[in-house]
Amino acid sequence: MNDQWYMQRALDLAATMNGQTTPNPMVGAVIVKDGSIIGTGAHMRAGEDHAEVHALKMAADRAAGATMYVSLEPCHHHGRTGPCTEKIRAAGIARVVVATKDLNGRGIESLRDANINVDVGVLEDQAVKLNEAFFHYMQTGKPFVTVKTASTLNGEMTTPKQVSKWITGEAARQEVHELRHMHDAILVGVGTVLEDDPALTTRLEVEGRHPLRLVLDRSLRTPMDAQLITDGEAPTWIFTEVSREDPKATQLEKNGVKIISMPTVTPNAVLKELGHAEIQTVLLEGGKKMIDAFIAEHEVQRYISYIGPKLFSKNGAVDLEVEDVRMVGEDVKVTVTNKRGDK
Amino acid sequence: MNDQWYMQRALDLAATMNGQTTPNPMVGAVIVKDGSIIGTGAHMRAGEDHAEVHALKMAADRAAGATMYVSLEPCHHHGRTGPCTEKIRAAGIARVVVATKDLNGRGIESLRDANINVDVGVLEDQAVKLNEAFFHYMQTGKPFVTVKTASTLNGEMTTPKQVSKWITGEAARQEVHELRHMHDAILVGVGTVLEDDPALTTRLEVEGRHPLRLVLDRSLRTPMDAQLITDGEAPTWIFTEVSREDPKATQLEKNGVKIISMPTVTPNAVLKELGHAEIQTVLLEGGKKMIDAFIAEHEVQRYISYIGPKLFSKNGAVDLEVEDVRMVGEDVKVTVTNKRGDK
Amino acid sequence: MNDQWYMQRALDLAATMNGQTTPNPMVGAVIVKDGSIIGTGAHMRAGEDHAEVHALKMAADRAAGATMYVSLEPCHHHGRTGPCTEKIRAAGIARVVVATKDLNGRGIESLRDANINVDVGVLEDQAVKLNEAFFHYMQTGKPFVTVKTASTLNGEMTTPKQVSKWITGEAARQEVHELRHMHDAILVGVGTVLEDDPALTTRLEVEGRHPLRLVLDRSLRTPMDAQLITDGEAPTWIFTEVSREDPKATQLEKNGVKIISMPTVTPNAVLKELGHAEIQTVLLEGGKKMIDAFIAEHEVQRYISYIGPKLFSKNGAVDLEVEDVRMVGEDVKVTVTNKRGDK
Amino acid sequence: MNDQWYMQRALDLAATMNGQTTPNPMVGAVIVKDGSIIGTGAHMRAGEDHAEVHALKMAADRAAGATMYVSLEPCHHHGRTGPCTEKIRAAGIARVVVATKDLNGRGIESLRDANINVDVGVLEDQAVKLNEAFFHYMQTGKPFVTVKTASTLNGEMTTPKQVSKWITGEAARQEVHELRHMHDAILVGVGTVLEDDPALTTRLEVEGRHPLRLVLDRSLRTPMDAQLITDGEAPTWIFTEVSREDPKATQLEKNGVKIISMPTVTPNAVLKELGHAEIQTVLLEGGKKMIDAFIAEHEVQRYISYIGPKLFSKNGAVDLEVEDVRMVGEDVKVTVTNKRGDK
Ligand SMILES: [Zn+2]
Ligand SMILES: [Zn+2]
Ligand SMILES: [Zn+2]
Ligand SMILES: [Zn+2]
Repeated sequence: MNDQWYMQRALDLAATMNGQTTPNPMVGAVIVKDGSIIGTGAHMRAGEDHAEVHALKMAADRAAGATMYVSLEPCHHHGRTGPCTEKIRAAGIARVVVATKDLNGRGIESLRDANINVDVGVLEDQAVKLNEAFFHYMQTGKPFVTVKTASTLNGEMTTPKQVSKWITGEAARQEVHELRHMHDAILVGVGTVLEDDPALTTRLEVEGRHPLRLVLDRSLRTPMDAQLITDGEAPTWIFTEVSREDPKATQLEKNGVKIISMPTVTPNAVLKELGHAEIQTVLLEGGKKMIDAFIAEHEVQRYISYIGPKLFSKNGAVDLEVEDVRMVGEDVKVTVTNKRGDK
Repeated sequence: MNDQWYMQRALDLAATMNGQTTPNPMVGAVIVKDGSIIGTGAHMRAGEDHAEVHALKMAADRAAGATMYVSLEPCHHHGRTGPCTEKIRAAGIARVVVATKDLNGRGIESLRDANINVDVGVLEDQAVKLNEAFFHYMQTGKPFVTVKTASTLNGEMTTPKQVSKWITGEAARQEVHELRHMHDAILVGVGTVLEDDPALTTRLEVEGRHPLRLVLDRSLRTPMDAQLITDGEAPTWIFTEVSREDPKATQLEKNGVKIISMPTVTPNAVLKELGHAEIQTVLLEGGKKMIDAFIAEHEVQRYISYIGPKLFSKNGAVDLEVEDVRMVGEDVKVTVTNKRGDK
Repeated sequence: MNDQWYMQRALDLAATMNGQTTPNPMVGAVIVKDGSIIGTGAHMRAGEDHAEVHALKMAADRAAGATMYVSLEPCHHHGRTGPCTEKIRAAGIARVVVATKDLNGRGIESLRDANINVDVGVLEDQAVKLNEAFFHYMQTGKPFVTVKTASTLNGEMTTPKQVSKWITGEAARQEVHELRHMHDAILVGVGTVLEDDPALTTRLEVEGRHPLRLVLDRSLRTPMDAQLITDGEAPTWIFTEVSREDPKATQLEKNGVKIISMPTVTPNAVLKELGHAEIQTVLLEGGKKMIDAFIAEHEVQRYISYIGPKLFSKNGAVDLEVEDVRMVGEDVKVTVTNKRGDK
Repeated sequence: MNDQWYMQRALDLAATMNGQTTPNPMVGAVIVKDGSIIGTGAHMRAGEDHAEVHALKMAADRAAGATMYVSLEPCHHHGRTGPCTEKIRAAGIARVVVATKDLNGRGIESLRDANINVDVGVLEDQAVKLNEAFFHYMQTGKPFVTVKTASTLNGEMTTPKQVSKWITGEAARQEVHELRHMHDAILVGVGTVLEDDPALTTRLEVEGRHPLRLVLDRSLRTPMDAQLITDGEAPTWIFTEVSREDPKATQLEKNGVKIISMPTVTPNAVLKELGHAEIQTVLLEGGKKMIDAFIAEHEVQRYISYIGPKLFSKNGAVDLEVEDVRMVGEDVKVTVTNKRGDK
């Protein structure tokens, strides 16, 4: 057992809470004494105990003289729950190992002032990656944007009318619901609403969290009977260039929709607005035109592409199977071919 | 050492000649006696010795009583080089192990009639896969069609004007030249000729074979100064709906281009014509419209997609890096993200 | 997210406590409500809160109507901490998902009697494996025995006198200390004590737990100045056929050693004695004679062999390097060869 | 296609002949012109055509101006078959690519003198590895020694009397016959002959080559009715300190055994003798005492250990199964455990 081993446990605990801590970062903590773990904790929800506090409660009196591993610099500000630095000091923790500093954090300095040994940087890359959305938000004031698309190998993102099959299989569609579960908000263009009338909810075997539903809809074309207006499953916000005084806008608001009117609906303007609302993660699900607008403004941080081994055309679908997937230099190479036995 | 081990050697030998045996299949042969290999051979070029003949020549007198491993049923017809079955018999080979039967082949029967032990089906799947284009051609009379595309993750196949970079990297571009080396012909639509003026030749560190260059050009818009008209590097054929009597057609033919005129240029009609010319493998490189026409007629047997970790838009390119590639069920999932350190 | 996903989290939490829960099993629990985790816990030390209790404390009032994932059937007996089933019921948990049943456990039945939905068997194999030592102990009354050896490829387990090097490298030696950290007791024959005078303590970068030190010493030959008699780092027990009245025995006991005298010191007798003392896991480190005695009595459950790429002889050591390791059928094949450049 | 691609083909061809070229090295050659392979060859047996000659014969007239890839520097000496350099020059080869130089070879120099372009070092590591035994022999005058052992995890190399099972499984035992097939000679101590009466022949699904059988037998204890004396399957040599005039020696020689008498039978003396007889590869199969003698004299170049997941003791065998095999630093770690369901 070494510092890495215990920090990995703290990081695992933190990651368990992926998606549920927003707008706070994911944080995990482990307290170790005499070769045994005497406390563990993770931050679970904004407004509730920090990871350090959970772990200290579990350790209770035994915390004196122990070492705490925590995946992010402990807080020193007097926020909703009081500074963790103070609680660490009070519990008599002798050494704190921190994976990575917080932006503008003063916790490490404060712990050292209290004569606690502090080591920083254990598994730092992993800790930074874990909270990349949080750090991105803190630095830019805008949410971290992940695009998710599903297409055939020949680039089709919509199924031809006469074809009654999905682009991707069951497993990939399940993963999309897990992505929704882990995001604060999901964003689509009004075109997608008009064509597909999606619910944009999280449907998982074990109930997941529904993200906030966002529609970019310059001229307010979202139908009043669209699922995301009527189903009441999750809040829906519409970004539009139409005035909130407009009758359609008024009617939508009566139906519980939040109308955000702005002179020009641009990716940057929308993301700033979301930033003000403490939305840290947004999943872009389409359509292509809206995604390309975000790309053009360099507002995409991650892009996840599901590729079905199919070829769609106006005459229907050709089903193939993946023969090979691999990296060729920095590129991805996907080879699909006729299923064995097919002509 | 078992039958599989020696057959694998024969298959490896056959595969070495990939692309150079057309319109013949790739075939390899190994002769074994007293625990040692006494002859090896592969068919190298149509009109030359078959694999069995090369191996028998090497083995010479020692062939009597030996076992021959051959990746395809030996020929029994009196073609350009005489039946291999006869040579095998004459050499006194005692046992022949065959990976897979030829379509309508009579070699195995003939060997058995000559009291030679014959075993069939060792590494058969591999042997069928190796010559899938040959078998496809024999069964359909049309070449095996492989599509090759290069696109960004957001589906762009052309580089925006103001961007001076390739969609894919050096390694992927090198592989495309290896694909050309292994194909009988390469096919593009006239749109690609007009936009890119490509040479469609094989450029490899060690000189490769240039495929036949084919253009689908309904109204004969290929410019007289296009590289594939003027460079003389490889033959060029144009499929058109314009008459061969047309002045442009006449002029192109004077420049060495073969004009194939047909009432309607369709994938199926083109492939049949190529089949008559004993073209077994065609590589489709674009554009998207032509590829989609082949897909719509179900005339694509393999599809190779190179995906660059980039996002192109009208405002230029966003360079990302591949974070993860893996199968999710039957689909491929590609995740790209900001390079570390980028904002 | 599905039941497997949350149960995996519970199992990870349980595994974090490997070695520190004895004689209790490792158990982890996760409570989920409305798509979020509202409580997590793991059993940390005998006599302290069970996993379920930690998780329920964290969830507090929110537990009502929630689902609990727990890696082992909750206890129903009125032991040191009261039955968990009662606490689960009182908290209003609506559904309990259990990875595997406890031996003779009545928790599941009791929960169902309280009209709580209970599902059993999610990730059961993993849960059984995690606590295999515990289950073995419960079924046999004897500890789970793991042998650990280090040898050269030519089977030497001791370093020749004139060679000043370890059989295995730093990484393997570090792992051995992790093994000790995770075991209740470590067992050696008196021969090992006489030859090596080992400390048998856990020396890790971050302080680990020292296992109980056990010596099989029929005629009580352990020297009074042996490290494990004098260093006071961990308790030492000696199994012997000499009477406790014997002066040497008396002297050893004065030095804090526990003398366990039995008519015949056999593996089975020793393990039964350890079972009575609630020792669940024993690490056998040597020597070969003692290990072979345990093998002969079929008292070895796991055998871990570290193999250094060296060849020892009376003339010293030949250093080689591992060229290949792989499975051949059910066997392991290790190939070592001269380091590049060596003669 | 690049130089590496074609050299890999030449190396694959060479490797196909593993074990049958002795005392010559394995060599493969590929001739390439205008992007196609026009000749391939491998050296098959001492006294027969070199790889270059096979390939040139196949290429015939087309060789002029072509490039030859050859895995070892072409010979320049006037041996049994005449210098290949001369044939390469006569055929008009324009460029020769060589994987690695021969020891004291003058072929490259000679080709350059004939104004042929020569590039050296393509895939050199692989080429050196392929012929490591040949190079070892050329440098030391002694054969390359590979030890092969089979043992249980607790180091037992012989099966207890009452146990009727092999130490290793079918697949591993099959591999041992492949090892024999690839070695010039197989060496055992007389103890192994007395205990096991082994045939030491190669038994493979497809007939393999029998290695020369060697016995180290100081006092000539090999029984007259031992299999390797009576079966006539392969030559047998005995190294002894007994005089060839001795009646037993005379009798053995009458039975076709070669008696090599030396003042002291040491590994070094035996290997020197074998070197004089142009034996390049020896497989040591036991017993442990003899192997240790070779280790003590630093006369082992490779050591292959098959490890069965069993524990043998005087009371019989415990069957386990491999749970994990991996590298820990520079060492190998093998973990075996009770088969699921076993007690
Ligand atoms: Zn805090
Ligand atoms: Zn033929
Ligand atoms: Zn309990
Ligand atoms: Zn030569």
